[in-house]
Amino acid sequence: MPQGVPTSVPDDGLTTRQRRNRPLLIVHTGAMKGKSTAAFGLALRAWNQGWDVGVYQFVKSAKWKVGEEAAFLALGRLHEQTGEGGAVAWHKMGEGWSWIQRGPEEDHAVNAREGWEQIKRDLAAERFGCYVLDEFTYPMKWGWIDVADVVATLRARPGRQHVVITGRDAHPDLIAAADLVVEMTKVKHPMDAGQKGQRGIEW
Amino acid sequence: MPQGVPTSVPDDGLTTRQRRNRPLLIVHTGAMKGKSTAAFGLALRAWNQGWDVGVYQFVKSAKWKVGEEAAFLALGRLHEQTGEGGAVAWHKMGEGWSWIQRGPEEDHAVNAREGWEQIKRDLAAERFGCYVLDEFTYPMKWGWIDVADVVATLRARPGRQHVVITGRDAHPDLIAAADLVVEMTKVKHPMDAGQKGQRGIEW
Repeated sequence: MPQGVPTSVPDDGLTTRQRRNRPLLIVHTGAMKGKSTAAFGLALRAWNQGWDVGVYQFVKSAKWKVGEEAAFLALGRLHEQTGEGGAVAWHKMGEGWSWIQRGPEEDHAVNAREGWEQIKRDLAAERFGCYVLDEFTYPMKWGWIDVADVVATLRARPGRQHVVITGRDAHPDLIAAADLVVEMTKVKHPMDAGQKGQRGIEW
Repeated sequence: MPQGVPTSVPDDGLTTRQRRNRPLLIVHTGAMKGKSTAAFGLALRAWNQGWDVGVYQFVKSAKWKVGEEAAFLALGRLHEQTGEGGAVAWHKMGEGWSWIQRGPEEDHAVNAREGWEQIKRDLAAERFGCYVLDEFTYPMKWGWIDVADVVATLRARPGRQHVVITGRDAHPDLIAAADLVVEMTKVKHPMDAGQKGQRGIEW
């Protein structure tokens, strides 16, 4: 069950093992819940493999804090104390990125580009085994970050670095470059029945 | 952003807060990856709220172990040591359920029903704040567990217990009873390009 059977074997000169272990670019898109939660679920698997995990949340508000953040920071501390799992770095745009010695700019486009420049540096340094670029489709959609630069950088990234990008309206060029794309589709949502989002479920 | 605006407010006699905090029955279905990972992502949020988390994996193989299991057990130990987050209980059918003093039966239907009976006892005792019934759609699909019993039990569950059910081909009656249903749809999968599943991504 875990392994599955590919429908075809490409003539790419790779062994099955080499092909299997190729790093993946994964996109979670669509209008429905589950894009970020599934990305953090993947990051748990990565952490368990002992891979370092880097999360970049492209959200505007510093107030927005998901439960995954506290849980991953706890796992990161556990790694520091016991060596279990991998290291965890969690960066948020809304707070001003942690590596920048000032609060966030008023200009969200500037903040988003600073995040992307750091991701490029981290990819070049092969800093993490798993990257979660949460809500990263939006700065691309709004023209703040150049899609061609993102695609070229991700295609050329060295080593074995998995990258998961979440957000609605993923650009067609990003989808074309991705290895795995899931669309989260709404069948039913409590908001349709007048129920607002709640703690522990939405964040 | 976290809260959203409901499209209508129902005439159900509940305050906004009461309606907001109603426990949810969530179903992640569809043919694509992300159903279980998103469920475990939700369980992270629950853990962070200090809610106890109960996971029941309806998988046949004892060998099948996802990275989430090790990570959640680590979070459970952290809770025991520091009080952070909630307690974690993780049960797997393939190993024989942990509360049963023998290995699994040859008969998978018997094993699945024993799992469901325990879930009923736990729901009645309000044992967890968040239940993940992973791959629970299959024993229903195969006729091992009565869908009407599942729906009636979940509708009548006491207190504030959130339940997330994952698996393909969710029964229409289960979908009708659910508050939130996400379908994970394939846009693109590496298997289409001849790449098999890999450690840290698929498990």
